Amino acid sequence: MEQKDMIYEGKAKKVFNTDNPEIVIVDYKDDATAFNGLKKGTIAGKGAINNRMTNYLMKVLEEQGVPTHLVKEIDDRRTAVKKVDIVPLEVIIRNRAAGSFSKRLGIPEGSDLKCSTLEFSYKDDDLGDPLINSYMAKAIGAATQEEIDLISQYAFKVNDVLKEFFAGIGIELIDFKLEFGKTADGTIVLADEISPDTCRFWDMKTGEKLDKDRFRRDLGDPEGAYKEVFARLGFGA
Amino acid sequence: MEQKDMIYEGKAKKVFNTDNPEIVIVDYKDDATAFNGLKKGTIAGKGAINNRMTNYLMKVLEEQGVPTHLVKEIDDRRTAVKKVDIVPLEVIIRNRAAGSFSKRLGIPEGSDLKCSTLEFSYKDDDLGDPLINSYMAKAIGAATQEEIDLISQYAFKVNDVLKEFFAGIGIELIDFKLEFGKTADGTIVLADEISPDTCRFWDMKTGEKLDKDRFRRDLGDPEGAYKEVFARLGFGA
Repeated sequence: MEQKDMIYEGKAKKVFNTDNPEIVIVDYKDDATAFNGLKKGTIAGKGAINNRMTNYLMKVLEEQGVPTHLVKEIDDRRTAVKKVDIVPLEVIIRNRAAGSFSKRLGIPEGSDLKCSTLEFSYKDDDLGDPLINSYMAKAIGAATQEEIDLISQYAFKVNDVLKEFFAGIGIELIDFKLEFGKTADGTIVLADEISPDTCRFWDMKTGEKLDKDRFRRDLGDPEGAYKEVFARLGFGA
Repeated sequence: MEQKDMIYEGKAKKVFNTDNPEIVIVDYKDDATAFNGLKKGTIAGKGAINNRMTNYLMKVLEEQGVPTHLVKEIDDRRTAVKKVDIVPLEVIIRNRAAGSFSKRLGIPEGSDLKCSTLEFSYKDDDLGDPLINSYMAKAIGAATQEEIDLISQYAFKVNDVLKEFFAGIGIELIDFKLEFGKTADGTIVLADEISPDTCRFWDMKTGEKLDKDRFRRDLGDPEGAYKEVFARLGFGA
């Protein structure tokens, strides 16, 4: 497979065409941003960790019946994935109050929830990726009811699988963000990434944050946190 | 029925105990507020109009199978209603983009929607009544799934009835806010009010706003707008 022209550069990834019209190559960067791009920095080694961690977890999810965009890891930073139209909804699952949920509802971070929650944010940087609900998503044509049902079902399945998986390596999965895409034939698959950029990981014993909050909140040594999660997944330092 | 001590004073209404522990008296004020209380004013005659309009519409809704808190109109400004615990969710139904929906999603006011929408705002002035979804409402204990299902069913029924009703008097029902309460025996009933304070009414021919936006946005003569809707409902000037 031959890498062709770059078609997109986001905050943390570049995407390139290939000689196969149904496949693109994702190239993970070390760049880190937060607060809708207002805070910028670099986390050394992040690109390689996020690339390999995402691929590892997507394989786990595929085995559990969640279709993903993954085709093949090319090297440390690059992966071939199915070309998709991204559904313009960020899908956030929460198992414990944190981040924007805590702020919006005035609930201390770490508080228990009576049930896990699913949220949709409308993907629009200019609007600040606003929270919407499924009625609103339908009303503006962001997704159909069938797509919303399938995406919700996949997202909760991802939560079931990953929560148990991370508990097995001493990490509590607090919340995470998913994105889904539609392939050329209309199939909905899990896309984007699953990494400390997109999940909140708390050490189950110490409560230590092992995710991008270390960068967002200047808690120190984000590199070490990413490496720690990576190592617990069985990847050597 | 004897009016006793005041138990609550809100932005637009006072509530009094009565000698019947299951009944309270609502007393409608002419005070108008907007933007979570930041803008304050008076709309002369509003209290009496909103009281009588609400009671009239609640009777229409009762006949169509939506239970309400209405017991009996006492006079121009006061009505006896069932004492309820208010479910801490504002329920907003929209038939056309306007207000916070337009702002949140960057969609011009008046735009068509692919479907009517329902939103929940968590009733908390300090938090600014934030938008939440049904998962979030359950997670923080604001309502159960059964309550959410029933409230949603009632809210869409209210929309069906009122949309047709107002179309019959030349008014397009753009959106509206409802509140529900639980009576002593746990029954969920429609509470609060239905008026130009809580609905967006646009004249079907001219597009003229006949609601609180005239006050919110300083469009002039809010009194005239409230009187116009009231008159079209068949109440003499």
